[in-house]
Amino acid sequence: VSGQTLSPEEIGIGMRISIHPHADDFERIILRAIKETNRALNLDDPGMGLEISTGEVSTYVGVKSGDAAQQLAAYAATLIHAASMEADGQHLTSHILLSRGCPGEAACELAPGDIPADKPVFLARSGLDVTAAWSLYPMADNGAPHMEPIMAAIEEAKDAGLTVTSEHYATIVRGDLSNVLAVLVDAWAKVGQYVPHVVSHLSLSLNSPSAKRAGDAT
Amino acid sequence: VSGQTLSPEEIGIGMRISIHPHADDFERIILRAIKETNRALNLDDPGMGLEISTGEVSTYVGVKSGDAAQQLAAYAATLIHAASMEADGQHLTSHILLSRGCPGEAACELAPGDIPADKPVFLARSGLDVTAAWSLYPMADNGAPHMEPIMAAIEEAKDAGLTVTSEHYATIVRGDLSNVLAVLVDAWAKVGQYVPHVVSHLSLSLNSPSAKRAGDAT
Repeated sequence: VSGQTLSPEEIGIGMRISIHPHADDFERIILRAIKETNRALNLDDPGMGLEISTGEVSTYVGVKSGDAAQQLAAYAATLIHAASMEADGQHLTSHILLSRGCPGEAACELAPGDIPADKPVFLARSGLDVTAAWSLYPMADNGAPHMEPIMAAIEEAKDAGLTVTSEHYATIVRGDLSNVLAVLVDAWAKVGQYVPHVVSHLSLSLNSPSAKRAGDAT
Repeated sequence: VSGQTLSPEEIGIGMRISIHPHADDFERIILRAIKETNRALNLDDPGMGLEISTGEVSTYVGVKSGDAAQQLAAYAATLIHAASMEADGQHLTSHILLSRGCPGEAACELAPGDIPADKPVFLARSGLDVTAAWSLYPMADNGAPHMEPIMAAIEEAKDAGLTVTSEHYATIVRGDLSNVLAVLVDAWAKVGQYVPHVVSHLSLSLNSPSAKRAGDAT
């Protein structure tokens, strides 16, 4: 295969996303947020580049064609923003699993240099502050040290103006929802140019009581 | 270093866990569940083998000494069970990140055979049905194919009597809360005997509306 001509679907690029409103009417909030996201991104048009299916634990968003990182980041930002508006200040969390490559997909067989680069994500500022626990997993089978791309990605997140701190097993990133998603989705896509199978997990928190209390104290 | 004499703390074994009651009184549910877990597992005794600190996104549970897999699984099972009792049938999710090894910890330097084996987990049946989205990431730097231990772990989960299905980027596991946690924590610990740095993410869902509707239909 010549990797440069592969579509996102052939590479196996997509995500799983769940949103968790901490509210009794969570079903209404989730369903309205999904409807608003479909409307805002015109996803009911069969020509759009996403394949979406909702399971019991989370929703799969696969990219069939087009700019993969941009489409995934826009879907996540729009869904979380819409849910936050519906939740009207109540605590909300979201979990996102970004994945490229194996198993089964063509990218398993690809070598660095064979994989098409993704365009950087652009998202308009959301006005929502989020805290994210970020994990990045380059699954290289060629014996390359896996911590190097992780450390490089953390430096880039700092350079992008996000507040970045280290905790056990995760990097904590704070900033505007759009900026956090753009930087972290870009970091994952960038590692994907060199490591065929790369996964990232993001746990986002909005309007948490502990963040509100910390805000009160300043 | 002789890996066989390393403590769980020196290897760097622990988890991050969050619970998400989909309820207006989520703070009460979480705080009471934590209190009940501390009481049930006697965690206020400074001689216990866990170090626990709560952050904005999740709670870190590090193992200082003793049987690491058993203590982590027992903490997660007790916390989720207590939260589910407090939530009284309302939808609840939990996210768990299990990690062993790098960065910074001694296990980064260890070779297979140098790492002490963990005892299998035993948990009493909970009576709670859960659905889990399961990811396992062996971060080998020696060029070993990373998909092999994942496929072996999936086969073992099936042999353990869990309902196991594949979705994009995650394996879906259904069963009793205790059985699911025991099998998935054991799978992660077992890979850790051969791969110094191994991470697993579990997204658990209890009493989801879609599961309830599926139950109604049968």
